Amino acid sequence: MEQLLERYKSHMQKIAAYNHAMVIMSYDSETVMPKAGAPGRGMAMGILSGEMYSLITGEEMQGIMAEMAANIEKLDAATKREIELGLEEIEEISKIPKEEYIAFQVLVNDATMVWREAKNTNDYAKFEPYLKQIIDFVIKFANYMKPGVHPLDTWLDKHEKGMTMEVLDRYFADVKAKLVPLIHAIAERGRKIETDFLKQEFPIDAQRKLSEYLMEVLTIDRNRCAIGEVEHPFMSGLSSQDVRMTTHYYADNLLSSLFSVVHEGGHATYELGVDPTYDFTPLSGGVSTGIHESQSRFFENIIGRSEEFINLIYPKLAELFPEQLKDVSAHELYLAANESKPSLIRIEADELTYSLHIMVRYEAEKRIMSGTITTAELPALWNALYKEYLGVDVPDDAHGVLQDVHWSGGMFGYFPSYSVGSAYASQLYAAMMRDLDVPALVKAGDIRPIVNWLGERIHRFGMFKKPSELLEQACGAPFDPTYYTDYLIRKYSEVFGL
Amino acid sequence: MEQLLERYKSHMQKIAAYNHAMVIMSYDSETVMPKAGAPGRGMAMGILSGEMYSLITGEEMQGIMAEMAANIEKLDAATKREIELGLEEIEEISKIPKEEYIAFQVLVNDATMVWREAKNTNDYAKFEPYLKQIIDFVIKFANYMKPGVHPLDTWLDKHEKGMTMEVLDRYFADVKAKLVPLIHAIAERGRKIETDFLKQEFPIDAQRKLSEYLMEVLTIDRNRCAIGEVEHPFMSGLSSQDVRMTTHYYADNLLSSLFSVVHEGGHATYELGVDPTYDFTPLSGGVSTGIHESQSRFFENIIGRSEEFINLIYPKLAELFPEQLKDVSAHELYLAANESKPSLIRIEADELTYSLHIMVRYEAEKRIMSGTITTAELPALWNALYKEYLGVDVPDDAHGVLQDVHWSGGMFGYFPSYSVGSAYASQLYAAMMRDLDVPALVKAGDIRPIVNWLGERIHRFGMFKKPSELLEQACGAPFDPTYYTDYLIRKYSEVFGL
Repeated sequence: MEQLLERYKSHMQKIAAYNHAMVIMSYDSETVMPKAGAPGRGMAMGILSGEMYSLITGEEMQGIMAEMAANIEKLDAATKREIELGLEEIEEISKIPKEEYIAFQVLVNDATMVWREAKNTNDYAKFEPYLKQIIDFVIKFANYMKPGVHPLDTWLDKHEKGMTMEVLDRYFADVKAKLVPLIHAIAERGRKIETDFLKQEFPIDAQRKLSEYLMEVLTIDRNRCAIGEVEHPFMSGLSSQDVRMTTHYYADNLLSSLFSVVHEGGHATYELGVDPTYDFTPLSGGVSTGIHESQSRFFENIIGRSEEFINLIYPKLAELFPEQLKDVSAHELYLAANESKPSLIRIEADELTYSLHIMVRYEAEKRIMSGTITTAELPALWNALYKEYLGVDVPDDAHGVLQDVHWSGGMFGYFPSYSVGSAYASQLYAAMMRDLDVPALVKAGDIRPIVNWLGERIHRFGMFKKPSELLEQACGAPFDPTYYTDYLIRKYSEVFGL
Repeated sequence: MEQLLERYKSHMQKIAAYNHAMVIMSYDSETVMPKAGAPGRGMAMGILSGEMYSLITGEEMQGIMAEMAANIEKLDAATKREIELGLEEIEEISKIPKEEYIAFQVLVNDATMVWREAKNTNDYAKFEPYLKQIIDFVIKFANYMKPGVHPLDTWLDKHEKGMTMEVLDRYFADVKAKLVPLIHAIAERGRKIETDFLKQEFPIDAQRKLSEYLMEVLTIDRNRCAIGEVEHPFMSGLSSQDVRMTTHYYADNLLSSLFSVVHEGGHATYELGVDPTYDFTPLSGGVSTGIHESQSRFFENIIGRSEEFINLIYPKLAELFPEQLKDVSAHELYLAANESKPSLIRIEADELTYSLHIMVRYEAEKRIMSGTITTAELPALWNALYKEYLGVDVPDDAHGVLQDVHWSGGMFGYFPSYSVGSAYASQLYAAMMRDLDVPALVKAGDIRPIVNWLGERIHRFGMFKKPSELLEQACGAPFDPTYYTDYLIRKYSEVFGL
């Protein structure tokens, strides 16, 4: 048994090493690699992902896993869960032919570079053939993994265990029913919020200093967490000891990078809080995109856009941007940070209208993966949905269908987790408020107890518990989206003086 | 035969993919990775280098190489050279036991992190046990590879084919005999050069813009070359399509980053100029550290510190630093860029005294690798040699024995190539002047013909030709270090009005 465990651990660590290399290569592609490096990177990724595929599906792994499964009662709880996850992954991945698995890795590597170029030059036609191939793969893989199941259901479940189109259809219908009237009321009777002062020049060097300050406020351990600059901000976690946040600075926009740092800071806080004994095992990292987004959006919106948080960071902002903010009070800044208006760009969208952006993508994915529209028809559908849900005209594809990186990386069924994550966050907040006076802590700049509360109930478990278990145990009740709509109605009625 | 070639090429590409991953991981360790990520990185590097070792020394490779060697007459010249290099590498690496090879990779990964910490905190004792282990490995490996040969000779030859302690002893004796009197003459009778204006505040944002400008002047293709920031600048080439330069900005020092960008730009120009058909084959990249340094030091010193180059970039400098340079002429800046004074830090040393810094390291390596001193005695030896050769007192180890990264990465026998590279550069310059009016081209900002001249004779060959062949064919004569001393005597006599 001891020998078996040894063999198992060493094989898992080998897989973790390949994974580590590939995560770093992706991170590098997004942050540093010069454009012309893409084909070489694709070649190397293809070869390493092929090796990884062999490690996961090969005879040695099959043998070890079969023996482990036969001895499952003798294993500790963590290893048991690893085996459960491992068997699931092997079963899924084994159904995908190796050549197709590798070809897909190479394709998404190339497609991400092409997407960036296409977005910069507003050239959807350039990206479309890649997107078409990606979608073909994504549908094919879903059919391999779960024949007879709608491909989008398969991918939804992969990103968030238990999630289905049925659940989401109901969820979004509810969100729409409750939020659209509020959005209308704001447009008609809401107070006018002053935001012109956000459009001055905010030197990037000072914004970089602001990021450092915000990470300190969020109690992020800089020994274990780096920050870089990139077109489309993301967080990349290699272990609880090595986490990378990214942001993007716009010289004429104060809030974009500010809230992206707080958002990615929420993701980073999750990864940094995972039990370090899970590092480089199958239990490392966050459990699902929904839970991950619940953490990032909790920090970005519930904490970051609260009046207490704006009051807390206001002196630093006034120090870094004395001229720009000399006629702006903390309260005015708080209101500006919560301005709500239908818009074009998801990552710049406000908290209230955000879920409508997700609905567009969800609807587009449903149709694309049901085969009822083609990639050539996608921009027109996109523009029509933005008009229908948000009432805005999309001027070009760079501000429309090309705005997000996800599809170029093969991520379908992922977007809904952003919205569901917000709903989780509201429910967690209500539970947290039973134990902590959150506004008072934020006011005092004492974020540590908040991080610890989440750490104890969510972060430390890594992949050990399922998303639904985590949420239910943290909140004392199963997922209930009304916390989300209640929270938004309460907050935005107050902000707009309704 | 075709099938054999196919097998060979695919195996070589696999090795290239592992190498690619490991270069990126090292690059990331130096540039982005948070400190606490080091143990995880070490684990992953250990596993991947073990896989790499197996690929290079395993049965499949042995079989392919034996068949290729048997058919060597049927191969094209490039593949022939690959086999020659490959057999050499296999022979060497096979002599090192796999466990030791892996342990060494893990050790140098850790040691590089410890070195950084030790340098920052001026704590040699912290680094010393790592250095001791590294030296033990380096000596042991040399003895495996070439039993009975002095370990330093083995490593010198590895970095620069044909280089020996005998050659270097003669070379340095000559350099010392010719340059020390010049250095004394400058101290006694040289004109006083004004450098105070270099010590103002030069905002880092403006220095970043200067780097972009310098890369443009050097005709570096930004599609294929990135620039990042790091403690100790270096260049990392993954292929002719993916090259990364780094620099370090000091707010109170204008010239440090300026010349480090031109230096690393010389390295980058070499990698960017290698025949792209060699990418991801054993012929990719520069052939030796000496030839590499000849390119970086050619651009840094012979081009970059020429009066024509300073005149060329002066308007840009005046635009970026108008207040700081308002009372400084281009000629005063030229003189300041060529100020020569014995100093403590190699990478900040001037062109003239630079080789004395190398002599200290060469002497230290000779004694360490002969076993005549211990790592504990190294700082005292270092300080004594700086006093003897340069007449300076080393105040602490951070400004002494801890200043360079190389030993933490296991690079012994490497430093002499910096000095030898300068000598190559002078000889190449003399040959280039027969074909091109270099000062006139630099004056006109037309650097392309210079890059092309080197590209045609040096860069494009990658590892195809040996260092001595390259030099001899480019210059029409074998290596002759008198070009170096002649150049220095001529230039510095003029700068100091002797």
